[in-house]
Amino acid sequence: MRISELSRRTDVPVTRIKYYIREGLLQPGERSQRNQATYGEAHIDALRLIRALRETAGLSVEAVGAVIAELKRPWAEADPISEALDKVYPLPDRKRSESEEQAYALLRKEIAEMMRGLTWTLGNEPRWNIDHLTDTMLQLREHIPPGISVETLGRFANLAWAISEACYAGFEDHVPSPGDDLVDPTRRAIMGTILIEQLISPLVRSALALRSNHIVAGIKPPPA
Amino acid sequence: MRISELSRRTDVPVTRIKYYIREGLLQPGERSQRNQATYGEAHIDALRLIRALRETAGLSVEAVGAVIAELKRPWAEADPISEALDKVYPLPDRKRSESEEQAYALLRKEIAEMMRGLTWTLGNEPRWNIDHLTDTMLQLREHIPPGISVETLGRFANLAWAISEACYAGFEDHVPSPGDDLVDPTRRAIMGTILIEQLISPLVRSALALRSNHIVAGIKPPPA
Repeated sequence: MRISELSRRTDVPVTRIKYYIREGLLQPGERSQRNQATYGEAHIDALRLIRALRETAGLSVEAVGAVIAELKRPWAEADPISEALDKVYPLPDRKRSESEEQAYALLRKEIAEMMRGLTWTLGNEPRWNIDHLTDTMLQLREHIPPGISVETLGRFANLAWAISEACYAGFEDHVPSPGDDLVDPTRRAIMGTILIEQLISPLVRSALALRSNHIVAGIKPPPA
Repeated sequence: MRISELSRRTDVPVTRIKYYIREGLLQPGERSQRNQATYGEAHIDALRLIRALRETAGLSVEAVGAVIAELKRPWAEADPISEALDKVYPLPDRKRSESEEQAYALLRKEIAEMMRGLTWTLGNEPRWNIDHLTDTMLQLREHIPPGISVETLGRFANLAWAISEACYAGFEDHVPSPGDDLVDPTRRAIMGTILIEQLISPLVRSALALRSNHIVAGIKPPPA
C-alpha cells in the first residue's frame, strides 16, 4: 500500500510516519518502480506498537526507539528486559549538596540491604532501581515528613512481587526450550512490563485517593 | 535575597525561575526600592517542590501548575486529590474504529462492574481511572495476547489497596477536625500519591524483570 493508505489505516498522519522512519522507529517502505515506497502489514503492526508505547505508556520518541531495538533481541541474551527498562526510565539528574549526598549514600545502602534481604531479588537488583527508589524516598522525606520507612518500602516490594505473581500466573513453569521462538518472549516481557505499569499506577492512585476519602468521610477503610 | 542567590541556593537557573514565574508556578518576588525583586524562603520551598514534581515525578510544567493550584485547597472541599490527579494524568486521546469502540464499551462495563464489587471503592471510582484501565487492557490484549483477565485486574486492585494500607499505616484513625490545618493534609495526600507512584513503579518493573529472569534461568520463583 502507499503511505496515504498506511496513514488512513493506522490513524497516524503521513508527516509523523515519515518522522518515525527518519528516527529509525519504522523500516522505510520498499521502493517500487515509479520511485514510490510501498508499505505492508508489518508497517501497520509496527505503527500500532509505536502508538501503544507513545499514547498508552506515554513514552518519548527516543524511549520508543530504545524499546524497539531491544524487542528484537533473543530472550536470555544478556538481559534485554532490564536493558530496555534502563533506557526507558532514565534517572533524574539531580545535583546534591555535600550533606544531601551523605544522606543519599546512607539511605541507598539501607535500601540495597533491604532489597538483598528479600526472597526474590537474586542479589542483582538493577542500579537504576535502587537509585530511583533512594531519590524518591528522600523527596518523600522532604515533602511529606517523616516520609516512608525502609520497612514500608520492603512491604511495597513484596506487594510488587505479588503483582508479578498474578501477572505470570500460568506461565511459571514455562521455561523456553531451544525449539521455541526466542524473540517473542522478550517482546512479551518488555511490552508486558511497560503496559502493566499503566494498570498498576492508576489503581494505586485510586486506592490512595479513595483511602483519603474514607478518612475525610470518617469511614473506617476496609482491610486489604 | 536576589534572584541570583535564589538560583544558587536551589540549583535552578535564573532563566528557568523567570519562566516558572511567567507560567504562574511561582509567586513573583517583592519589588524593592531599586526596582529589583527580592525573594524569600517561601520561594526556596516552592522551587524544591517544583523540582520534586518535575525531576522525580517527571511531570510536565503544565501538570505541575495544576498540582500547585490544588495543593492550596482545603482538605475535604470537593475532592482536591482526585481533581489534581485528573489534571496530572490526562487520558490518551485515541481514535477508535467502530468495532474497536464496541470492544471498548463492553470491556469498560465489565471493569466498572468489577471495581464496584470491590470492598473499598465507595462506588465512585473516578472516570479517568476506568478509561485508563480499559485502554491499557485493550492494548495488552493486542500486543501480548490474550492479555490480562478482568479477574487478574481485580487482584491488582486489591494489591493496590494493600499498598495504600501500608502507606497510611498509623494514620487510619486520624480524622481531620475543624481545628486542624486543613490545607496540609491535602498537600500531603497529593504529594504522597504522586511521589509514592515513583516507588511502586520501579518495584513492579523490577519484580516483573526479575521474575522473567527466574524463568529464563529455570529457577522456580519464590511465592509472594
